[in-house]
Amino acid sequence: MTRPPLSKDTRLCISLAARPSNIGTRFHNDLYEQLGLDFLYKAFTTTDIAAAIGGVRALGIRGCSVSMPFKEDVIALVDEVEPSAQVIHSVNTIVNDDGHLRASNTDYLAVQRLIDEHGLDPSGRVLIRGSGGMASAVGAAFRDHGFASGIIVARNEDSGRALAQRLGYDYASEVGSLTAAVIVNVTPIGMTGAPEASEQAFSDATIASASTVFDVVALPSETPLITAARRAGVPVVTGAEVIALQAAEQFERYTGVRPTAEQVAEASAISRA
Amino acid sequence: MTRPPLSKDTRLCISLAARPSNIGTRFHNDLYEQLGLDFLYKAFTTTDIAAAIGGVRALGIRGCSVSMPFKEDVIALVDEVEPSAQVIHSVNTIVNDDGHLRASNTDYLAVQRLIDEHGLDPSGRVLIRGSGGMASAVGAAFRDHGFASGIIVARNEDSGRALAQRLGYDYASEVGSLTAAVIVNVTPIGMTGAPEASEQAFSDATIASASTVFDVVALPSETPLITAARRAGVPVVTGAEVIALQAAEQFERYTGVRPTAEQVAEASAISRA
Repeated sequence: MTRPPLSKDTRLCISLAARPSNIGTRFHNDLYEQLGLDFLYKAFTTTDIAAAIGGVRALGIRGCSVSMPFKEDVIALVDEVEPSAQVIHSVNTIVNDDGHLRASNTDYLAVQRLIDEHGLDPSGRVLIRGSGGMASAVGAAFRDHGFASGIIVARNEDSGRALAQRLGYDYASEVGSLTAAVIVNVTPIGMTGAPEASEQAFSDATIASASTVFDVVALPSETPLITAARRAGVPVVTGAEVIALQAAEQFERYTGVRPTAEQVAEASAISRA
Repeated sequence: MTRPPLSKDTRLCISLAARPSNIGTRFHNDLYEQLGLDFLYKAFTTTDIAAAIGGVRALGIRGCSVSMPFKEDVIALVDEVEPSAQVIHSVNTIVNDDGHLRASNTDYLAVQRLIDEHGLDPSGRVLIRGSGGMASAVGAAFRDHGFASGIIVARNEDSGRALAQRLGYDYASEVGSLTAAVIVNVTPIGMTGAPEASEQAFSDATIASASTVFDVVALPSETPLITAARRAGVPVVTGAEVIALQAAEQFERYTGVRPTAEQVAEASAISRA
């Protein structure tokens, strides 16, 4: 299939980020091609988020993906905030229905779905390393999925304690000898370009004690942590899964069409090429 | 050539109209393809012109073509108004340089250029039928190009007299036995879809007395008036020339590239296919 020729009726979806990447643009446009949808997607940046969101509404831009540093600021600019975004006070997706802007957080929704798909047992303890915006989404997804016992590990004591408190979890500044059934990395450790790109977010001992290793880092998807977990034979959930699932969720909200896992995999591969 | 794959760096140009057509979208995108430019063009509509122009600025949309009914309203929303738009208080083109919005009127500029290209003699009299926004642009272009003697013919006495007065031209309610060196139709007479689609805007006698017949109607470009003029052997300027030239002028302002006449002709043909 191929998308129809561009016309006045083509729906535009955009993203807003301080530093836009090409990943979303490639991902969505590849799926439009695969599915023959009359949509177009392009990344934008702005220095005036209020006017940009006003433009989304006034121009009838169908969807708007929101990245750093706008995820909180847009809450005041939309007409409706879904629970997924309310619970973590962070928006990454806005859908425009004839001028009515509805905000949600598909990172939160994607993590919940992965917990389901991988059959993670909520009676076990979850250990989350990190205390930023994504850690907040991940923590809320686990807690709201029934994980009553959890621990937030973060060097930043202020944000770490605050997140733990919001979730009703424990707090620790170092992993040390802590163990948990599910261990999740939500820091830049292992991420291409980060100072800790070649480091492993959890020790081999911590990995060995876990029944699932979950890394939110998507570039590369085979982080040192994931590689070590595979070597140890511990089941993994990768950042590539999170990013693909959240993007598929966004895609469905914008277009009304749910792409298949194969279609998402192709678009994902192309978006990272 | 072909345009580069869509990316975050692709520049977007748009149009704003109450009832968008596909002509501009096809015209500009075809030229981007021909010239291999990393641009994209799409028609939009809006019910909130202030927020839409705010969005153009905030999203870094490079260019914005303006149609009815927004041509006057946008004047208050831009940062700079060029003489071409100031003189007729009507904007059809906005260029965005890093948030600085500059407005112009390429209809006015195109008519001036056609007067030049066709070597129309300003010592003759110009007769303009019509008193709307486009008639205002055409009249100002002739007057500013040295046509001291002119007459506005319009059934609407209020707008007709007002335009004649602004231009320093005469006014008449009917063409009757009036003659002029250049006769220009700026009414919907002869336009596809108009009630007077099959009518001829000037009589054979008026045509025979003219040295140039100018029709602003572009759909079709071979209006009954143009057909009659060709039959009578009187040189013509067509609405297709106006629309192509004004669009080429817009195109150059948005992209910095002046398309050749052949490229414009191809894009024009495609845009009306």
